[in-house]
Amino acid sequence: MPVDSLRVISDLEELRALTADDLGAQRLAWSPVWLKARAWFQNKLEGLPVEHHYDAAGNSWTTLRGDSEQALVLGSHLDSVPNGGWLDGCLGVLAGLEVLRGFSEDFRGRPPITIRLVDWADEEGARFGRSLFGSSAFAGTHTIAVDRVRTDRDGVRLEDALRHCGVDIDQVGDAGAERSNAAAYLELHIEQGPVLENMQLPLGVVLGTKGVERHAIIFHGQEAHSGSTPMSVRRDALAAAAKLALEIRPIARRHPDAVATMGSLKTFPGIVTAVVGRCETTLDMRDLDAKVLALMLTEARAASERFAAEEGCTVEWSKIWSIEPISFDSRLIEFCDEAVRKAAGVSHRLPSGPLHDAAEVARTGIPTVMMFTQSLAGLSHNKAEDTRIDDLKMAVQAFDRLARKTVNWLSAQKSKG
Amino acid sequence: MPVDSLRVISDLEELRALTADDLGAQRLAWSPVWLKARAWFQNKLEGLPVEHHYDAAGNSWTTLRGDSEQALVLGSHLDSVPNGGWLDGCLGVLAGLEVLRGFSEDFRGRPPITIRLVDWADEEGARFGRSLFGSSAFAGTHTIAVDRVRTDRDGVRLEDALRHCGVDIDQVGDAGAERSNAAAYLELHIEQGPVLENMQLPLGVVLGTKGVERHAIIFHGQEAHSGSTPMSVRRDALAAAAKLALEIRPIARRHPDAVATMGSLKTFPGIVTAVVGRCETTLDMRDLDAKVLALMLTEARAASERFAAEEGCTVEWSKIWSIEPISFDSRLIEFCDEAVRKAAGVSHRLPSGPLHDAAEVARTGIPTVMMFTQSLAGLSHNKAEDTRIDDLKMAVQAFDRLARKTVNWLSAQKSKG
Repeated sequence: MPVDSLRVISDLEELRALTADDLGAQRLAWSPVWLKARAWFQNKLEGLPVEHHYDAAGNSWTTLRGDSEQALVLGSHLDSVPNGGWLDGCLGVLAGLEVLRGFSEDFRGRPPITIRLVDWADEEGARFGRSLFGSSAFAGTHTIAVDRVRTDRDGVRLEDALRHCGVDIDQVGDAGAERSNAAAYLELHIEQGPVLENMQLPLGVVLGTKGVERHAIIFHGQEAHSGSTPMSVRRDALAAAAKLALEIRPIARRHPDAVATMGSLKTFPGIVTAVVGRCETTLDMRDLDAKVLALMLTEARAASERFAAEEGCTVEWSKIWSIEPISFDSRLIEFCDEAVRKAAGVSHRLPSGPLHDAAEVARTGIPTVMMFTQSLAGLSHNKAEDTRIDDLKMAVQAFDRLARKTVNWLSAQKSKG
Repeated sequence: MPVDSLRVISDLEELRALTADDLGAQRLAWSPVWLKARAWFQNKLEGLPVEHHYDAAGNSWTTLRGDSEQALVLGSHLDSVPNGGWLDGCLGVLAGLEVLRGFSEDFRGRPPITIRLVDWADEEGARFGRSLFGSSAFAGTHTIAVDRVRTDRDGVRLEDALRHCGVDIDQVGDAGAERSNAAAYLELHIEQGPVLENMQLPLGVVLGTKGVERHAIIFHGQEAHSGSTPMSVRRDALAAAAKLALEIRPIARRHPDAVATMGSLKTFPGIVTAVVGRCETTLDMRDLDAKVLALMLTEARAASERFAAEEGCTVEWSKIWSIEPISFDSRLIEFCDEAVRKAAGVSHRLPSGPLHDAAEVARTGIPTVMMFTQSLAGLSHNKAEDTRIDDLKMAVQAFDRLARKTVNWLSAQKSKG
């Protein structure tokens, strides 16, 4: 039977009514509202021939057992940033639920392979600053040794917030057990950027997630009186930083999908009557090609040193975080392309700038792909986040088609094997 | 008798020992340490044939009555910024005291005209953000209606701090009475900049204080995700601000003494993963020539609008504060030049970028001039502030010569009149 895409929309609206206030969605991971969203989700499973459990990292697993233990995994996340949107994450979970319902009905509760739906715990990292929490535990790339000391803005420790939700911080690595039998992973998500809207396309095929180089860059100059210090003898740390803020743009623009952002710049002493003695900035650079990303980093570093020298300053770099580019599975990309083309008439392949749980899954070697649906005005992480209803319906249909194609392929693989 | 410049140095050292700690001078206006410095100063008057009183704004007046009520006023300020230096302000007061002592001795307590020494109250404005407090009350340019609501970082109201020091905020305008009979004003100060040191000169003649245009400039762009937003569609408020930070430099450099400073730049939301949606900056521009200053302001405004348009942003200006350039008296500039040349062999004329009490005095029409002595490394407003002892001695001698020249001129004027 055809997938009921309208039920996905009404589920999304129901969840919004339950977990959003005037400022937007409030499903912050490990919070009461998030637990309420998850309980609501569990209620939705009533009457379905599925098993449900939470793994050691708090990921929520819904399993529809098939003839084979080999499993197709569908997933995304119910958690949101504070004042978030109605689609980020939960679209993927509720579309996955609808696909699961369809398989259950069509195969009378017993599809040829197992279908699993995962709601990853704390994708956003909005409260403790550690995104992809649950999926990294699944992938075995978690960093609990480092993360256990994290606290939220009220001083609550990550460890205690987890315990409150029934998760023992020392056991989160056990979530890796869920990897067994996982044969493929599919995730539907809103784009959270303007590319598809600018191309007037409802859907896109995601090639992978861009690698990220994230650095803190501090320029040291000489604080001086704005009135008594001639222009010629100044060592203005802001001037050096301003040059870099402008130079990272041509560095990125030389490559089609690359981005480079100076998101934070702080001046010290930062008063109207003093030449800036110290300027602290952050740089975030991303590309799907590791070589391009490495070249951009080298160029930005060289530029920063040149500008520091020109302004009589020094410059100091320290890495905040980095992750390599992660490419999705080429066969699943083809399947996704066919499904998108069938639903929308036209397809487009694009990398994802934001990270997603799918990147953690792909790192383990499980064949993975993501599908994007258009975001209006490229907005996300706020209550204005939106997508046309027609596009959402088309997305659910295309995602269902992708899942069926993947099941057929996995079944055929198994027969061959 | 020759002026005792060594006594000025030992007075300065005594004051430092009394009012500085490991972090520097702590003579914050309206504080107990400042009151202690003023009491110490009053003790220094013992044995001198002078009268002393505080005016309605808390300015400290020491008067050596002469044959004529017409008065030469010498002055500066004992207050300091927190963690300040040992010379800023108090050099002028203690050099003035030494000149007063000399006049008293040479004329057996009765010089041909009256000599007055003023220690202005709260020149720095370090606690309540209102600099030139006492001298603006003297000049009648005070802004008590606006300033009375000011509070310090502990929430103490200016009004209450003044009352604690015996000053009634509603009476400060009465300090204008001190203007009567003031025939000329002289002030010795450290340069607080690097110009004289770069020219290897101990002393300089100050042409006036530069006009100041001080503005807050806010660029509005569009906050966007650093990963999902292509370079081509960004509206980056930091990029527009960075262009302005660099452009104000050629705008100033087209004029020999002009300066332009972006001292504060703030990014919003100011996080590593977001394109800057709003950028708040400050601009401080100064020149001695009002026409040059007006041209610079026009050019900076036009540049900011051009850069905002280039980056898809808008820009909004609001004035923080401004003051017109104030030129000193041409005859006193000549006298000062002669005195400097006599003491140092060579003279140099320069504008002052920082404001001084002398600017408030000059605004009233009282003939005024300042003399600068070199600052090592151009440093001020911190404990590293310093000047060579030989230069300090030479400064006191030159200042004494300037005062005597001015008294002679005023006496001759009076005889003529």
